[in-house]
Amino acid sequence: MVQPYELFYWPSIQGRGEFVRLALEEAGADYVDVARRDGGVDLLMAALEVGDHPSFAPPFLKAGEQTIGQVANILLYLGEQHGLAPRTEPGRLWVHQLQLTIADLVTEAHDTHHPIASMLYYEDQKPEAKRRAADFVETRIPKFMGYFARLLANPEPRDYLLGERVSYADLSLFQVIEGLRYAFPNAMKKVEQEHPELTGLRDRVAARPKIAAYLASPRRIPFNQDGIFRRYPELDA
Amino acid sequence: MVQPYELFYWPSIQGRGEFVRLALEEAGADYVDVARRDGGVDLLMAALEVGDHPSFAPPFLKAGEQTIGQVANILLYLGEQHGLAPRTEPGRLWVHQLQLTIADLVTEAHDTHHPIASMLYYEDQKPEAKRRAADFVETRIPKFMGYFARLLANPEPRDYLLGERVSYADLSLFQVIEGLRYAFPNAMKKVEQEHPELTGLRDRVAARPKIAAYLASPRRIPFNQDGIFRRYPELDA
Repeated sequence: MVQPYELFYWPSIQGRGEFVRLALEEAGADYVDVARRDGGVDLLMAALEVGDHPSFAPPFLKAGEQTIGQVANILLYLGEQHGLAPRTEPGRLWVHQLQLTIADLVTEAHDTHHPIASMLYYEDQKPEAKRRAADFVETRIPKFMGYFARLLANPEPRDYLLGERVSYADLSLFQVIEGLRYAFPNAMKKVEQEHPELTGLRDRVAARPKIAAYLASPRRIPFNQDGIFRRYPELDA
Repeated sequence: MVQPYELFYWPSIQGRGEFVRLALEEAGADYVDVARRDGGVDLLMAALEVGDHPSFAPPFLKAGEQTIGQVANILLYLGEQHGLAPRTEPGRLWVHQLQLTIADLVTEAHDTHHPIASMLYYEDQKPEAKRRAADFVETRIPKFMGYFARLLANPEPRDYLLGERVSYADLSLFQVIEGLRYAFPNAMKKVEQEHPELTGLRDRVAARPKIAAYLASPRRIPFNQDGIFRRYPELDA
């Protein structure tokens, strides 16, 4: 039996695990968020070290006998299992390409507050963070968001990145927009004024019944200062 | 007709395109490295802007009617087409997971010399590069390389990451080892002394007839100071 899936991720942040959670929720899948149970973090740490296919880092997903790591890879799997990706090979590769581009943006968003080392505190790399964030706000957010906005607008306006049907990349783009709004509200206000397609996509995903129910539930961890998207006003100049 | 493939990537560096080139060479595929021909860079720039599936950045591969972007995604495709990945779904996902972990390492290697902004010169971010590279050498290279070495050693020594058969992830790991040797020779000497499995993997890939022929050919661009892996002695302390 493949379900219930077991998701292994840090229990107190959205982080990279949130891209998986959103797909599981939209799929209506039966899953356990292992580390959010009592003693779950120990299970997470232990699971990192064992098995034929150990992950370099969380999140990873146990699906029956299989353990699958790397967010985009987990979504590749879930997309096929739950109709969150096209069935044709070109379509499957295209949605995966979009997901990998989102993953690049997520890494860059993380590095705005940790440009030197993940293991150091933000306070130990503030001057560097300020320089990196300035470039992120000035050049990277507009470039990434402009790219996705063009996909939503051309050759004609569409509801989701691939057309009428939602895919896991839409859920992830929703999450990135939410995260950037939290971390860089000033920058995102400008970007969304220029690209209303992004606001439309965000609103459509948020209104999907299963996503709306999830966002209103205690399963959705609020954004906070330990995740990938953090609000340091000095970085959102 | 899918072949000849057309690879679109910067003509003067190995860069991210090299992971694709190595897979194409090992596969014995018929391909054109478009931008290395006269006027090819213009074709590359133009191709970024058109089509149903525009890429955010090079490299991307045209395979007949399909255009596929993102290195790991291109390798997912080529792996299936040319037997550079297992045929079973768990195997396909596992080798892809390894590739995505390599991609994370590649991004971190790039950011050692560009911790602030890709569009700035190294000379404009040297103090930050020095801090970031110090962490990369001290904690990140050992963590990533230790992970791959363990996979090559456990539960018993194996020739390639998945066992007896080479996969695209092996070719990419070879490339990362070569790149780290170029950029961080002191750090890599220590790492390989501790993890001879990595040297073994590197040597096995380099000795594969098609790879050996490629490496000896003018098609292999030498490492240089414009690529992802750059030799700045001050960063290899």
